[in-house]
Amino acid sequence: MISPEISLGEMRNAHQKTSNILHKTPILTSENIDKIVGAHVFFKCEHLQKTGSFKARGALNSAILAKEKFAADGVIAHSSGNHGQALAWAAREIGLKCSLVVPKNAPASKSAAMFEYGADVVYCEPTATAREQTCQKLAKELGFYNVEPFNCASMINGHASLGFEILDQIGDKIDSIFLSVGGGGMASSIAFCIGNLRPDINIYLVEPEQKKLNDLLSNDVICPVDTLNTIADGVRVARIGSLCQPILKQFCNHKVISVSENEIREAVKLIWTRLKQRVEPTAALAFAGIAFHRPAHVKNAAVILCGGNVDIDFIP
Amino acid sequence: MISPEISLGEMRNAHQKTSNILHKTPILTSENIDKIVGAHVFFKCEHLQKTGSFKARGALNSAILAKEKFAADGVIAHSSGNHGQALAWAAREIGLKCSLVVPKNAPASKSAAMFEYGADVVYCEPTATAREQTCQKLAKELGFYNVEPFNCASMINGHASLGFEILDQIGDKIDSIFLSVGGGGMASSIAFCIGNLRPDINIYLVEPEQKKLNDLLSNDVICPVDTLNTIADGVRVARIGSLCQPILKQFCNHKVISVSENEIREAVKLIWTRLKQRVEPTAALAFAGIAFHRPAHVKNAAVILCGGNVDIDFIP
Repeated sequence: MISPEISLGEMRNAHQKTSNILHKTPILTSENIDKIVGAHVFFKCEHLQKTGSFKARGALNSAILAKEKFAADGVIAHSSGNHGQALAWAAREIGLKCSLVVPKNAPASKSAAMFEYGADVVYCEPTATAREQTCQKLAKELGFYNVEPFNCASMINGHASLGFEILDQIGDKIDSIFLSVGGGGMASSIAFCIGNLRPDINIYLVEPEQKKLNDLLSNDVICPVDTLNTIADGVRVARIGSLCQPILKQFCNHKVISVSENEIREAVKLIWTRLKQRVEPTAALAFAGIAFHRPAHVKNAAVILCGGNVDIDFIP
Repeated sequence: MISPEISLGEMRNAHQKTSNILHKTPILTSENIDKIVGAHVFFKCEHLQKTGSFKARGALNSAILAKEKFAADGVIAHSSGNHGQALAWAAREIGLKCSLVVPKNAPASKSAAMFEYGADVVYCEPTATAREQTCQKLAKELGFYNVEPFNCASMINGHASLGFEILDQIGDKIDSIFLSVGGGGMASSIAFCIGNLRPDINIYLVEPEQKKLNDLLSNDVICPVDTLNTIADGVRVARIGSLCQPILKQFCNHKVISVSENEIREAVKLIWTRLKQRVEPTAALAFAGIAFHRPAHVKNAAVILCGGNVDIDFIP
């Protein structure tokens, strides 16, 4: 069952509260890419969002909630990068402290930015369990509001502003949307928002092939590993949040596309060289779904370029 | 003396003839970059122009001229990359053949694109003399219209649409413009167009330090080398076109900024990581001018990101 904490009303509230601080990110297109893909692709540029990823949307909504509803002194989270950057920025924007638990294999560019936004950073082992346990312990000690990266209603409601913007900007042009899926925070937010408002738009979930999301959505069989070995560092978590799963099951069942690591690399190359946008591999994951596995009826698709935080020496 | 072939009238004609085929490229800004630079920077995104550089503007105007005025079967040029791509594309757009003379050290991504647009490619030694001689010889043999990369009135008049767009988009906001200078085609076009229409806007020329443009503009002393050893491959030509020199002397004298190779590399990194735009080093050259040598009175500047064609394995 979908949590009653997640609703179009809360999504609209979040959009209203955050839109004057966030960017309304642009849409880019490329005739070159359209030819290669065989469909019109509209790229929603969340790598140009504050902090370089869509995470700023949910993080800002969550930090506002922590302050207004829970009167917290600070926020805390575990993050391999974008969530941490976004929360550190959001906390600074609205005057809260911020502590972040970071796995020690996180990309250097991402943890550097957390420091820049003034957060305290604590390193931990790179497993989902170590991240969550370290974070919960520290949250208790500090009395900070714990903002889960994806399994969190305020994050999910906050990300929906991305859905509203897409409908406003290109809602009359698209037949489908392609989303990268990690823990499912953004995917469930867009699926709930657009799935309810525009059920005619197909919402495709794109995953690294190891994740086996189809099994999870069809049979509740969870991928046996803790962390995926993928170049797309933003979706290394193997699980899907318990708040996200019923939403994805309702709106995106049988709409999972699995892509190989090589396809992700090729997708990065296409976006870098044709669109000239320096996105991170996790953003290219969504594009790999349509570039290499386009369902035949997809003619006009939105692809969310979810982030652009990638180390300077990374070559796809 | 400035050639009578170069005029605001011809520039307006070219703008009118080409604007329905070219992109009106967007302007991007970044609060992060503004903080680092200490001024508002408006990036004019010519790396998002057709063929990935501003060269499409002049090349299209030149190809139209070759067909309409000279009834040529084809166009020919020598180019290390962007000019060739642009001319190959322009020729295809208006139905002409295209041959290109390319120095054998040109970036692979650039010559690959020339083939893609259907041009014939002939390689030559990487010197200015070899390029020009090979091209002139071949032009004669084929009977094709020779489109000089920078010392060419139709290129200079054609590039001016970039100046009109900048004035239209941010003319009320800027006090200065920063331009990368190679042979001087774009620089003289913008200098003539904006220098005449808006003499209150300061036009700065940014060069790799080896070029010594100040000597050329002040004392007519030409840099003694043929080709500059710079990471900015689009401005390796050491000379300035004879059509360009009097324009730059009139509108940009005492406004030359020399930057080091390391500053160009740092400028690429800032644009890649903060603006998320994968521009080529020659585009970052212009930004290095304001980022590391900002004249104190510059508060609101346009920087032209002239191109985005860079090999996938390039790391700044």
